[in-house]
Amino acid sequence: MSQHIVVIGGVALGPKAACRFKRLEPGSTVTMIDQSSLISYGGCGIPYYVSGDVSDERELFTTSFHMVRDPKFFKEVKGVDVQILTKATKIDRENKRVEVENVNTGETSFIEYDKLVIATGAAPRKLGLPGEELAGVSYVCNPHDATKIRDSIAKGEVGNAVIIGAGFIGLEMAEAFADMWGVETSVVEITDQIMPRLVSPALATMAQKHMEEGGVDFYFGETVTAIEGENGKVKRVITNKRTLDAEAVIIAAGIIPQSDLAKEAGLNVSERGGVLVDEFMRTNDPDIYSGGDCVIVKNLITNGPAFLPLGSMANRQGRVIGTNLADGNARFDGVVGSFVVKLFESSLAGTGLTLEAAEAAGFDAVSVLLIQLDRAHFYPTKELMTLEMVVEKETRRVLGVQGYGSAGDAMVGRINAVAAILKNTPTIDDISNMEMAYSPPFAAAMDILNTLANLADNVLIGINRGVGPDGFKKMWDQRDQGECHFLDCREVADANEYVERNPEHWHNIPQGKLREHLDEIPTDKPVVLICNTGARSYEAQITLDDKGFKDVINVQGGMAAIKKYGVDV
Amino acid sequence: MSQHIVVIGGVALGPKAACRFKRLEPGSTVTMIDQSSLISYGGCGIPYYVSGDVSDERELFTTSFHMVRDPKFFKEVKGVDVQILTKATKIDRENKRVEVENVNTGETSFIEYDKLVIATGAAPRKLGLPGEELAGVSYVCNPHDATKIRDSIAKGEVGNAVIIGAGFIGLEMAEAFADMWGVETSVVEITDQIMPRLVSPALATMAQKHMEEGGVDFYFGETVTAIEGENGKVKRVITNKRTLDAEAVIIAAGIIPQSDLAKEAGLNVSERGGVLVDEFMRTNDPDIYSGGDCVIVKNLITNGPAFLPLGSMANRQGRVIGTNLADGNARFDGVVGSFVVKLFESSLAGTGLTLEAAEAAGFDAVSVLLIQLDRAHFYPTKELMTLEMVVEKETRRVLGVQGYGSAGDAMVGRINAVAAILKNTPTIDDISNMEMAYSPPFAAAMDILNTLANLADNVLIGINRGVGPDGFKKMWDQRDQGECHFLDCREVADANEYVERNPEHWHNIPQGKLREHLDEIPTDKPVVLICNTGARSYEAQITLDDKGFKDVINVQGGMAAIKKYGVDV
Repeated sequence: MSQHIVVIGGVALGPKAACRFKRLEPGSTVTMIDQSSLISYGGCGIPYYVSGDVSDERELFTTSFHMVRDPKFFKEVKGVDVQILTKATKIDRENKRVEVENVNTGETSFIEYDKLVIATGAAPRKLGLPGEELAGVSYVCNPHDATKIRDSIAKGEVGNAVIIGAGFIGLEMAEAFADMWGVETSVVEITDQIMPRLVSPALATMAQKHMEEGGVDFYFGETVTAIEGENGKVKRVITNKRTLDAEAVIIAAGIIPQSDLAKEAGLNVSERGGVLVDEFMRTNDPDIYSGGDCVIVKNLITNGPAFLPLGSMANRQGRVIGTNLADGNARFDGVVGSFVVKLFESSLAGTGLTLEAAEAAGFDAVSVLLIQLDRAHFYPTKELMTLEMVVEKETRRVLGVQGYGSAGDAMVGRINAVAAILKNTPTIDDISNMEMAYSPPFAAAMDILNTLANLADNVLIGINRGVGPDGFKKMWDQRDQGECHFLDCREVADANEYVERNPEHWHNIPQGKLREHLDEIPTDKPVVLICNTGARSYEAQITLDDKGFKDVINVQGGMAAIKKYGVDV
Repeated sequence: MSQHIVVIGGVALGPKAACRFKRLEPGSTVTMIDQSSLISYGGCGIPYYVSGDVSDERELFTTSFHMVRDPKFFKEVKGVDVQILTKATKIDRENKRVEVENVNTGETSFIEYDKLVIATGAAPRKLGLPGEELAGVSYVCNPHDATKIRDSIAKGEVGNAVIIGAGFIGLEMAEAFADMWGVETSVVEITDQIMPRLVSPALATMAQKHMEEGGVDFYFGETVTAIEGENGKVKRVITNKRTLDAEAVIIAAGIIPQSDLAKEAGLNVSERGGVLVDEFMRTNDPDIYSGGDCVIVKNLITNGPAFLPLGSMANRQGRVIGTNLADGNARFDGVVGSFVVKLFESSLAGTGLTLEAAEAAGFDAVSVLLIQLDRAHFYPTKELMTLEMVVEKETRRVLGVQGYGSAGDAMVGRINAVAAILKNTPTIDDISNMEMAYSPPFAAAMDILNTLANLADNVLIGINRGVGPDGFKKMWDQRDQGECHFLDCREVADANEYVERNPEHWHNIPQGKLREHLDEIPTDKPVVLICNTGARSYEAQITLDDKGFKDVINVQGGMAAIKKYGVDV
């Protein structure tokens, strides 16, 4: 039975659902409408176009085989009818039709549907600030914005820039400005870290230090109060603490699902916006589906609502919708929240919950931090990788893993391996035994992911007790109070410079010599053990435990973490 | 209660089990014995030492913090007693003691144990050939062999070399010889492909072509009958088909688990060698554990026996044994068979079963082949990746995924993600919805792994029907018989050179124009559809199906696969 499908929205989810449906039901028809003249572009590529990594704006509109994805392409290649500059103004569910308005003429008409897909996406959050409308202030939401920004940088009009918001887009744009164009770039963030809620403060600080080395300045805990300009062009950003010169401003303060059309049609939407759908990506009207940046899905770890506006979600959900439009039975259960972002020569990635998110969701959890080489220590391309694992204490269930590493695929590979199994409620033991493919150019014999789980195991059974670099910093900052004994258990050659620099506070006994020098270690205060990465200090902790020391603290990640975190030792 | 543990074997598993146990029971004692003077070396690093990637042999013996892992290290740092040059000659289970022989003096004595670990490893398979004892013939089984080989190459004594066996070590050594030293290198392999049983003929051929471009010659289906020399030094390798000059010969024809000691002690061993252990890595004697290269474990896909001698297995099993020696309850369920090997600028990796292995294990399975970019098509560092998925037809269960890609971490990352979930018997739908972290520098919006599962779905429901590059080659080789109509559905600019080169056989109608040119396509013979990677030809297949064509074949992987496979078109 031939049917007519209407898709509202021509970017990411819309085209995917439309094309998948047409492949399953070539005899049916699809009309996809979009209020813009731009459809099916790779919005996630915008920062890379601004940076120049992507040389030609057209690459964001073309297929991998260089065909422009315009209405003609959709008609000829995909068999999908597209109406651009056509805005959906109302969904008339009773008569199964959509009221549309011609954006140029204002003329309205109706398109009837058998089934409807709402793919209205999300819009950047506006801050309602004085000066937000000035030229040079942008939300980087479509390729036209990107072209404008890049053109003005290329013309030399942008010597300094302020980014508001240190999430994905803010950081990617900061890199584009600073790294490729040498623009003096500042990021103003209302919380006290980059990537808030997505990574721990420790990982965030490591990535932040790296970006600072790349020339980006950060201002945390600051609120922008106004944007000022001259002759209609932006000149300054005013925060509650300072004034920053800015010839370009990017507002990257989050995006908001566009669900008003759905709401006005009586469909269920979340209180904070976002269409509510079931596991078939169906709204409460069985003939209306929705997906992509405008929906709320289920977080498979917390079972609460999740808003995860990523191109990957739109694509996968689009396929599910396309299948179900053709009377299929495809499911999209929900998300575990995987993400990755490249920041200069590094990457931050994660899946599942951070410790903060886990505790907010009611889990009694703990997190452990590990720094280790990402491949065999003798293999020349090895790099240090930092991973953090969040575990529910009682059940040993792994709730999430986040990491900071180099910019290649090694870090995201580990995160994806965890993500693959995360909804199956793995325990520490599952990750400890996860079968990572081994060969020296790709992994250590005990892969960092296995070691991370082993560390969590050792922490939970109580034989490895410690702090991360942030915990170390707190103790070190108070070293003059003499409450802790800092003991470097590396070889003398490694420890010496720190002993010389801090003769009163930094002590050294190589771990292999510990048993012979126990009388040099105080028993009346916490002993803080430090080595390169936390492995030898863990061995030292076991020795001291065995010898009856009562309060021994292992610095997880050791000097490697301390340095990346930027503690002055 | 303090106990004494004896560990037979000081490489990989032995040290891991010993050290883990000592950390859990610092008050107990461990004696680790080894017949060699070399212990705890990174055997997997040998090819990289030979190639020069690892500059100093000592790096194979040192920790990541540059301490030599010798008996003194184990005593001081790990609290483990090591006796080198001490060979275990008999296990006296009744009296719980091991008879040992001093390798230098021949003197025998006994070491008593509370619990015993057999970590005797594996030995290279000798071929029993005339000439196998000649100088210059090596099995690359320890760093001393490696040093000898590298020294003789560095001295200019090796202009050509023959490798016998195209498995991991053979291929890694071939790369070391050819790539770093410019040695004329030939590989003789008894089967008809590289990495037999581990990857499909299609993937094997792609990697082989790449290695050939790097200067390695391959001779498949050949048996070495003799090795010949002059003045005690190797000069030639004779096969059943040819004579190859060889100033160095590497025999890499597999390794054999060393389980005689266990067998003689009445422990259960496999018919073909290998100690049999349960999921706690325990033999049939509850006080004796075994692991590493000398054991047989369970294949979690087939439930049959598996021999997977990898350093990663030894490390993970070693930890399990160490835990259980300390009355823990750690498990090693078995393996899914993950592997990866770097071959020049490429990598081959896989997990689970190939189609051949699946069929041999009794599964009614099918495999699909996909070539796609490993990240956003507009991102400059994108590369083509080829993945193959093996699926049980009736249950849609994923039995394995193998791949061929560039040498970075992108390929192994996908394999590890599948490996992570493989023992949970995932279906196609689990991989289709696997939540790969997305950002353009790391993945396409629809990650290749998701697309691979979608392809398998489309194949199983019958809307994508096709062959891989090997199937295409068979049809193309018989093109003069006129039994198939080859139809390139790319744009004219892409297809033109092939049409011009093969005017009789190569036809072109761009996919978007197909509906207007249906009368040019014959209905009395199979239509073989070709595009860049198989995506547009799949769209074309749907159109032709819809228009009533009865026999349409899509070339999976398209021209990209055809070229990598080396078909002359």
